[in-house]
Parts: sequence; C-alpha cells; structure tokens
Amino acid sequence: MKRTCFKEIYRDVSRFDGKEVTVCGWVRTLRDSKAFGFIELNDGSFFKNCQIVFERENLSNYEEIAKQNVGASLIVTGVVVATPENKQPFEIKAKTIAVEGASSPEYPLQKKRHSLEFLREIAYLRPRTNTFNAVFKIRSEAAFAIHKFFHDRGFVYVHTPIITGSDCEGAGAMFQVTTLEIDKIKGQPDYKKDFFEKKASLTVSGQLNAETFAMAFSNVYTFGPTFRAERSNTARHAAEFWMIEPEMAFADLADDMDVAEAMVKSVIAHVMENCAEELEFLNSFVDKGLLERLKNVAESDFVRLTYTEAVSILEKVKDTFEYPVYWGCDLQSEHERYLTEKVYKKPVFLTDYPKEIKAFYMRLNDDKKTVAAADLLVPGIGELIGGSQREEREDVLIAKMKEMNIDPADYKWYLDLRRYGGTVHSGFGLGFERMIMYLTGIANIRDVLPFPRTVSNLEY
Amino acid sequence: MKRTCFKEIYRDVSRFDGKEVTVCGWVRTLRDSKAFGFIELNDGSFFKNCQIVFERENLSNYEEIAKQNVGASLIVTGVVVATPENKQPFEIKAKTIAVEGASSPEYPLQKKRHSLEFLREIAYLRPRTNTFNAVFKIRSEAAFAIHKFFHDRGFVYVHTPIITGSDCEGAGAMFQVTTLEIDKIKGQPDYKKDFFEKKASLTVSGQLNAETFAMAFSNVYTFGPTFRAERSNTARHAAEFWMIEPEMAFADLADDMDVAEAMVKSVIAHVMENCAEELEFLNSFVDKGLLERLKNVAESDFVRLTYTEAVSILEKVKDTFEYPVYWGCDLQSEHERYLTEKVYKKPVFLTDYPKEIKAFYMRLNDDKKTVAAADLLVPGIGELIGGSQREEREDVLIAKMKEMNIDPADYKWYLDLRRYGGTVHSGFGLGFERMIMYLTGIANIRDVLPFPRTVSNLEY
Repeated sequence: MKRTCFKEIYRDVSRFDGKEVTVCGWVRTLRDSKAFGFIELNDGSFFKNCQIVFERENLSNYEEIAKQNVGASLIVTGVVVATPENKQPFEIKAKTIAVEGASSPEYPLQKKRHSLEFLREIAYLRPRTNTFNAVFKIRSEAAFAIHKFFHDRGFVYVHTPIITGSDCEGAGAMFQVTTLEIDKIKGQPDYKKDFFEKKASLTVSGQLNAETFAMAFSNVYTFGPTFRAERSNTARHAAEFWMIEPEMAFADLADDMDVAEAMVKSVIAHVMENCAEELEFLNSFVDKGLLERLKNVAESDFVRLTYTEAVSILEKVKDTFEYPVYWGCDLQSEHERYLTEKVYKKPVFLTDYPKEIKAFYMRLNDDKKTVAAADLLVPGIGELIGGSQREEREDVLIAKMKEMNIDPADYKWYLDLRRYGGTVHSGFGLGFERMIMYLTGIANIRDVLPFPRTVSNLEY
Repeated sequence: MKRTCFKEIYRDVSRFDGKEVTVCGWVRTLRDSKAFGFIELNDGSFFKNCQIVFERENLSNYEEIAKQNVGASLIVTGVVVATPENKQPFEIKAKTIAVEGASSPEYPLQKKRHSLEFLREIAYLRPRTNTFNAVFKIRSEAAFAIHKFFHDRGFVYVHTPIITGSDCEGAGAMFQVTTLEIDKIKGQPDYKKDFFEKKASLTVSGQLNAETFAMAFSNVYTFGPTFRAERSNTARHAAEFWMIEPEMAFADLADDMDVAEAMVKSVIAHVMENCAEELEFLNSFVDKGLLERLKNVAESDFVRLTYTEAVSILEKVKDTFEYPVYWGCDLQSEHERYLTEKVYKKPVFLTDYPKEIKAFYMRLNDDKKTVAAADLLVPGIGELIGGSQREEREDVLIAKMKEMNIDPADYKWYLDLRRYGGTVHSGFGLGFERMIMYLTGIANIRDVLPFPRTVSNLEY
C-alpha cells in the first residue's frame, strides 16, 4: 500500500500542502460535533499526532467513524491543509476513512494520565503512550548512534557469545543454561548428557572474547545482551540488559577515556538532533532538567580525577555521608553523587582505583597499589561506564590471577593473547539502559527496557 | 597515541607520500637479507598488509627486529613511499621500530595454509588469518548495513527479550534458564524458588514481541541472538545465532516481500562497496563464483512463485529427486535447490504454503487451504528468509490456535493486539549467519560465527 508517513509531512508541510495523501494510524482522541469531527491520529512514524477533520456531508460512513473507540486503527485518504496560524502546522481533510481495526471501550489506554507502574503491567501496550513512545524511539536512535559512532571510526562489530562455559570476570551471579530434564536429576547432574557436555551459563560480559578480536582488528566493539542473576530489586538493576563493550589495541587509559567521552557526546548529539520532539516532551513531563543537562554534557569537557584525589576531596566533608570514606573503600552512591552533583556538576572519570576492589584483568600501575581503571560517573545516574587498560604483561597477569584465586589454566587462551604479539590495550563497558535513563530522565530501568526481566518478572 | 591506520593510507596514498607516520600492527611475514629486511605488517584496519622496509644502517635495533617471530606486534615510525610501479601501492621506510609484544616460534599461525577445521579449534586466533579477517569484517559491515537500511526507512529498533516464559511459535527445542541448584532438586522442581518464579527459556524468536511494538510504531525490527537446542550436527545449524525480524503494520505480503528484497540487495551493495578487497580474496580462495553471484542478485528481480506453482514445476521432474514431491509436502533442500539453481538461477520467493506445514500466526488465505507465507530461497544456501502476513482476525486466529493445540489463554496479550486497533501486518525473519554464508561463500555456519555454539561445543 502506498502510504505517507506523518514524519514526511511534518518535515516538509509546504510540499504536501493541497496534496492528497493516504495515511494510516491509531486514534488517540476523537471528537464528534455532529456536522463534523476531529481525530488525533498517531502513526508511530513521528512523535506528534496528526489532526484529521471529517465532515458529515462528505463522508458516507460518518456515523461509523464518529463512534470509533480510542485505539482503533484507520486508513484515511484526504487533503493536507497547512495551518500555519494553528498550534499544529497542518491538518488532513478526510475524503474517505476506512476502519482497519476497531478498538473497544475496555481499551486500557483511555485519554488520561496513567502511572508508570500501571503501564509497566501492560508492557505490550505501553509503547502506544507518549512517554513510552518517546523512550523507545530514543532507545532505537541511541542504538543506531552507537553503531554509527564505532562504524565511522573503523571499529569492527563482534557478536561475542551469549552462552558461555566460563564465568568471565566473576562479575556476578549467573543463570545456568541447560537441556537436562531437571526434574529427573538425582544428585550430581551428568553434564555429559547436557547439550554442551559441560555446565553452561549466560554471559555477564563479552570483554574477554572481544579482546581476542582486538588483537586482530585493533578496534572492535560488542553490543549485545548480558545477564546477572542478582536478586537485587532496585530501580537500576535488571536481570537482562544490553552492554556496549569496545576494545582497542595499542590504546592506553587516556585513549580509552577519549573514546568513551567522544561516544557519549556523539550519542547525545544524535538524539538531540533526531528526537527533538521526544526530548521536549520528556523535559516537560518527566524530568524538567533533562534538556539543560544534556546540553551541558554535550558541551563540557569531562573531569578526569584519580580515586586518590577523589578520596581526599570526600574526606574533607566525610561527616555529611552515611557511609565512611577512606582510601581503599569502595565508593558509595552518595560519594559519587557528591562529586558529580555538588563539586563538578558534570561527568567525572574516576581513575586509578585500589587494585583490591577491581577486576583481575586491569593493568597494575607502577605504584603497585592501584590499577589503570576509569569509571565514568554522571550526575543523577552514577556509574555509566566502567573501563580500564588491560594487563598486557603475562607474568603480572598470572600473579594477579593467583592472588585472586583464579586458575590461570582456565584462561590459557586469554593468556596466549599476551604471548603472541600482545599489545597495550584498553576498553570499557557502557550499560545501554543506564545511557537511556540518562537520555530520557526515566528513573527506573524497568521503564527503558521493552519487556524488563527482573526477580519474579517474566511477562510477555 | 597518534597512530595512522593502513586504511587511511591505502585510501589516499598521494596525500601520505613522503610523509612520516607512526603505524602499529602484527607481523605476518618477515624476511631478513642482512643489510635490510621486509616486514608484511597487518593492523586490522584494512584487509591488505603494509610492507615495512628496514635497513641495518638506519636502525639501531636491527638485530632485534630481524629475529622477531610471526605474530609479534610492532610500532613503526617511518616515511610513506608511493610505489605505483609495484603490486603494493606504497611501502613504509622505517626510521624506528619498537617491539610492542614479541611472539613465539610456537605461534600456531605460521605462514602456510591451514584448514578451516584446524582454525576452528583456535577460534580465538583465527580472526588474524586472511579468511577469517575477511569473514568477520563482512559480518560487521553487513550488520551495519542492516541497521542503516531500517533506520533510513524509519523503522524503530526493538530489543525483544532473550529470556522468555513462553515457547513462542513452538519453533524448536529450547534451552532452559534457571538459578535453581539443579543437583539439589528432588522430583518436580519448585519454580517458586527459581529466579523468575516460573519456568524460563531462551527465546527462539522475537516476532510476537515485535508485533506489539509494530502496533505502536508501524515499522519496527529486532536484531538479536536466538537459540535452538536442536541436536542437529549440520553445517547450517548452530545453537546460538542472530536473527533480524522486521514487523510492519498496514503491510501485506507483497509489501513484506518488497522490503525483504530491498534489504537483501541493500546489504549486498553495502558489502560490495565497503569490502571489495575481502570479497576479492574470498572469490579467489573460498568460492570462485561468489562475486558473480552477488552481482547477479543485486541486479535481478527476485522471482515470486506460489508453492502450488512450484509443486507443479517439480512434479514434472519428480524422478530426479530422492524425496517425493506432492502438494502438501514440506519441500526438501533438493527441491528448493532445483528451483533456485536449475530453473531460475536467482533468489525465489515461494508463497502461499499449505497451512498445515506453517506456523499458527500466518494469515489464512481465502482458499482456506494455504497461508500468506513467503520464504526466500537463494541458490547455494536454501532458505534465507521466512516471512508471512500475520493473521489479524481474532476469530480466525483463535480457531487456528485450537486446531494446533495452542491454548489461546496463554496468548491473551497477543490476541489483544487484534482487539485494540489491529491492522493488516506482516514481517519476516532473516537468519544473519545464513546471510553471511551467502555473502562470503563460507559453507559451514561454524566459520561465520565468532565463537560458535553447537552440540558439545562451548569453547572460549
């Protein structure tokens, strides 16, 4: 069917003015004034609705149309009329309207404000609301912006595996994947009968696999789902979420931060350019400071601060915190927020953390006490990115693994990368949902995932 | 570090001619002629190597460099010299060479031809070979081409869930996902204690979820991993693979095929434009007919043929087949190949299959015997795409579910899409690995997946 999308008309009203078009969409509101009526139609191509005007004397099925319920889908043929004096830049005067699919008075999305919690219960319908339409459009544009950013810089996109036989960085509780009939297991499962003939889990990170590709392509990235089976019922954690993990050969921690900062700014710029209407809506109805914050980040240089410097800043005001702060502590959310929201009021890279609180693969600094890590903390969200320079020295890496009770034999292939032309290399992980929360002002991760998976929630 | 990528130089030799650059990469070959030596260096930014020339009288560490093993990583500063008379358009005369990471004589990728089977055993090193470098670069570019195709047409990218509580289309055996300690289960597992408080599996398709978003955005697509726990040890099946699934409201089967055909052509065009060197290599060493076949597909109109017409063509030569062919049969690979390789010599959409051999959600045609399905068959690969117009009539859909022993109560939300402004809509699924096999001429799916997962294989 030859249909015109609202976006096309909105972007070039003068070209369509006076022209006949066929449009399709869903009724957001319908008002019948006996002789004529108005329909706010949304077709999903554009955030804003299009007003359809229909008149009794021109429309043979006026009665049928006038009694349609909210949510009905319609196919409208009519003439575009520019209305520069009105709030809406054009309307469509209908010649024919066909009901593609009726709706029902029980349709849950009647015209009124619904709570995010209520809409979460009907996740399969909520993209039809303004808020979720905006959120999921921004999610889509942000994903594209990330692919474009890396593609334009020559990074190779690698699909690292989802099912894994290793527990990678030991980054958290894992889901087991099996084809064993678990109701028939007696005692120790016989993994020789499982699909992979060994214990299998869902990945918590693609980093180690990505490193192998970085040693061939120099610059690579992954963008895929990752899983944590942690029973934390917070607004910031989901069991299934998406991560972006670039990995770069011949790149140190400063290079790593340069790429991370450029990426964040590039995604913000892309979304501001391509989702202006969505951001404006979210700025009005969800988070009043959203636009100002995004503009501020896009334009400012991120702070780069060592952990040691941060601790000395925080120690000066330690009485204002609930949790103690001292060199060696894992910084709490309140500490991070103080730095990003009170001291700097912009994103802060915190670098060179104590080695004890970071992963085994991070490069040991010359002080032997800290590692070349860089976490990006942002106001309102906390940690958006966790990155590091990787330990390229085989002997140092093996010593660290032993210190952390990791058996080097389990990582022979990973160690081999250091034996066969290893390089200084670095990478980071961006939690995609955190980025979307940051871009939309939405406070709960359940509301930026199309169908969120959390403890005891597995609907649709 | 300020480094220049080989791709930059290859794309604009004259701009770099006579200029000093710093490049990084890995030794593919090294020849030492006492007074001078040659290194073929690859940096992963470009398919081709760059020749580094180093001379004893200019290089203080000549001995160290001359004895480096294949696979070592180097940082070279030198002057680009255009060599238009040679096979290689330029070389770099080294001023300094630093060994970033040595390699070892045991490095498995010595300069000789290795079998694909051998390289599969060292999946973490194989992207360093020409063949896999080409395959995984093409995979990356094809993924980008798909995102770009849909983005440019206004499709919204949806991350449909990976962990699911439903068995979707019943498309195959599923992996179970659990946090229960399976060695401690006695008899029936208590799913109230499992993470999601119900039985959970890995998705076999994102289609039904994508349909819910299509009813809000009109045009959407998914691109994510999907899983089949089938113990088939073939060259075309993996337990973990990636699928692209677009879904379009207000679109019938003809629209569906239009989009599928445009997408395939667009991906081929993008890869031919961006991976010319890789395709040329694969055409010489993997599949002699590759380039001709891709050009042919990019330029020809795909055939559209009903299943009924196909069967009558096949029945005329039924003696040439091993399996019987008759109306109602599920076509075998030999039948499909006959159509695409003997009769038409190009891709064929086969449409309107008998309802009994297709999924419950496909729209029943007026003949009540067939459904509005369209599979795209391509020479050498077989089924590349499976698509259909979806059943939008609630009563017909419920009747079909009952016929197929599917409980409509389990799909209330899916049925609701037909009650609240349902539309004619269509979609398809593209197996991404099949597409990469088609684009590269690689015959085994294990060689187009970075780290393939198949029965009893779960390495790295």
